[in-house]
Amino acid sequence: MNQFYMPTKVYQETDAVKNHSEEMAGFGKKALIVTGGQSSKKNGALKDVTDGLDKQGTTYVIYDRVPENPGIACVMEAASLGKKEGTDFVIGVGGGSPMDAAKAISLMIRNRDSSEEVLYQNVSLQALPVVEVPTTCGTGSEVTPYAILTRDDLQTKSSIAHHIFPVLALVDGKYLEQAPLSVLTNTAIDALGHVLESYFHSKATDYSRMLCQYAMEVWGTAADVLFGMEAKEGDYDRLMFASSLAGMAISHTSTGIPHALSYYLTYHKGIPHGKAVGVFLPGYLAALPDSFEPQVIMALQALGFGSLEQFAGVIKELLGEVKLSNTEYQEMVDEMMKNDRKLKNTPFEVTKEDIYKITEICK
Amino acid sequence: MNQFYMPTKVYQETDAVKNHSEEMAGFGKKALIVTGGQSSKKNGALKDVTDGLDKQGTTYVIYDRVPENPGIACVMEAASLGKKEGTDFVIGVGGGSPMDAAKAISLMIRNRDSSEEVLYQNVSLQALPVVEVPTTCGTGSEVTPYAILTRDDLQTKSSIAHHIFPVLALVDGKYLEQAPLSVLTNTAIDALGHVLESYFHSKATDYSRMLCQYAMEVWGTAADVLFGMEAKEGDYDRLMFASSLAGMAISHTSTGIPHALSYYLTYHKGIPHGKAVGVFLPGYLAALPDSFEPQVIMALQALGFGSLEQFAGVIKELLGEVKLSNTEYQEMVDEMMKNDRKLKNTPFEVTKEDIYKITEICK
Repeated sequence: MNQFYMPTKVYQETDAVKNHSEEMAGFGKKALIVTGGQSSKKNGALKDVTDGLDKQGTTYVIYDRVPENPGIACVMEAASLGKKEGTDFVIGVGGGSPMDAAKAISLMIRNRDSSEEVLYQNVSLQALPVVEVPTTCGTGSEVTPYAILTRDDLQTKSSIAHHIFPVLALVDGKYLEQAPLSVLTNTAIDALGHVLESYFHSKATDYSRMLCQYAMEVWGTAADVLFGMEAKEGDYDRLMFASSLAGMAISHTSTGIPHALSYYLTYHKGIPHGKAVGVFLPGYLAALPDSFEPQVIMALQALGFGSLEQFAGVIKELLGEVKLSNTEYQEMVDEMMKNDRKLKNTPFEVTKEDIYKITEICK
Repeated sequence: MNQFYMPTKVYQETDAVKNHSEEMAGFGKKALIVTGGQSSKKNGALKDVTDGLDKQGTTYVIYDRVPENPGIACVMEAASLGKKEGTDFVIGVGGGSPMDAAKAISLMIRNRDSSEEVLYQNVSLQALPVVEVPTTCGTGSEVTPYAILTRDDLQTKSSIAHHIFPVLALVDGKYLEQAPLSVLTNTAIDALGHVLESYFHSKATDYSRMLCQYAMEVWGTAADVLFGMEAKEGDYDRLMFASSLAGMAISHTSTGIPHALSYYLTYHKGIPHGKAVGVFLPGYLAALPDSFEPQVIMALQALGFGSLEQFAGVIKELLGEVKLSNTEYQEMVDEMMKNDRKLKNTPFEVTKEDIYKITEICK
């Protein structure tokens, strides 16, 4: 099946929020802005959004307490504020954490009398319109229907049961200019994970492969900045663009084994998401059957890498190592082998040996 | 500005209509099926649609009198039927003519008390949901918001003022198997026009270029069949896929000078749309400033042509010639020079000399 569905309208340009404030403000009378405590204030995104709403005469209330890897408590607190204030649409500003939270919050405001259990229940529910303003270049959440939350009950992270596509994504590379290099790297590697996991995925289609192939080329032209080189003109825009393309790709396929494994590292070891994904990418490519070799070489070349060995070296150089105790390591592998849904996302029959290969870096 | 907006959900696969009949039938209680008199009966598309609706218990009425290049009279007649029968969604089945008509008809049913003037008025109007089932590989109408109608009052063809994206496109290459070679050629050349006009367009963006580049490669792998060669496995699917990708591209950019010129040939000389577009494509590429040369070569290579001269030769071989009298020729050129909107779609300042160059084949 070759399916395409991407209902989010995207404007990517310098001053996207300012230029499209009328459209941004047009989804209701009062907005709930959902963001983290710091970065969206530093990089100017929050001010762009409030200026835009002010200009259009749309009122708003700000919830700025989304932590990294938010959980259900944060969602319920923000939804409670939104309900109290009578907000009728939600604007997520920041990285994946506030953007994902914004989707779950919009669902809980719209279904104001429901308890948090509905987040993970397979029932059909509407959400308020969600606008997303990304300030990192990895999650692609501005164009995905996913909302990944930390689940303390399950000791992992997982997406809510509901698919909520943002109605509008306002993407502006300038917000990356102030980002610390570690944030740029971690998020750009997350996007790389989306591209590679979606490209080598059991549900890959011609449409999703197109998005991946273009994302690889765009990413490859802008990646120098991750190695501390001075940004060339357009590098930040291209990193953002690659991230959105990769988000569109996983909207069609979902992610695969590296993402599934990453949740263990983030939940139990506090390792940032991008790094937690990235360390498994070389192993994932190495575990693919030989028949995938031409595609692996093509993908690495498009991204700017000469070989799988070089790619593995770069990943190690950029992200460092992640070591687990024997007990932790075995627990991570065993959990992965029980994750049928993600195992099925892989375009070959995955054995425990394959998982050992993919996770060798953590031994 | 790098914009992306493509809200139509697309399923491209063998038996797409059958496999997704529940979704197709889910847009209301009674459908108006809009189609032409013959081909959708021959290629099985109409039966697939009625079988699917029957299976889901959704009633329908069929309007099967859409001619090639339909005008406003046809739209009003079908809308009248739809209103009388209380249909609440529209399914277009066939080539560009019924698919475009379906959009205009859905607008006129939804706005049941309006007269035909609203079709070309710049007012904000809703339309009924439109599902499209293409049976040719050129128009891309299943994923565009355009509805091109013949305008006898203006002696040309032009799109209505309203942008109506289909909610669902069900794309199945098998409908091409029975198509006469002339229809395959004419429509595949129309898709080629969409790709080239969108790629070399003043409003081209990174997103639209991605769609064009991929469409070129897909088209290039399937074009042998246009030269009378036996279809390889997947050729028909790839021609359909290229056509949808090209449609997505022009949804972002619109078309350019070859399409604008084609309307003269079709209206005044009865030349089929694809041929009327195709004869101008080599001239359009030749008229591009030298700075575009690398992109022109890249595009032609992706499509499977070694040079512009070879491309021009193939177009002439496939489509034949189109000769106009001096008066007609001059009238066509003069009309083109008055068409500011289309001239502005060109990524360079167009002179009358350029138009002479593009249209030389008609002299």
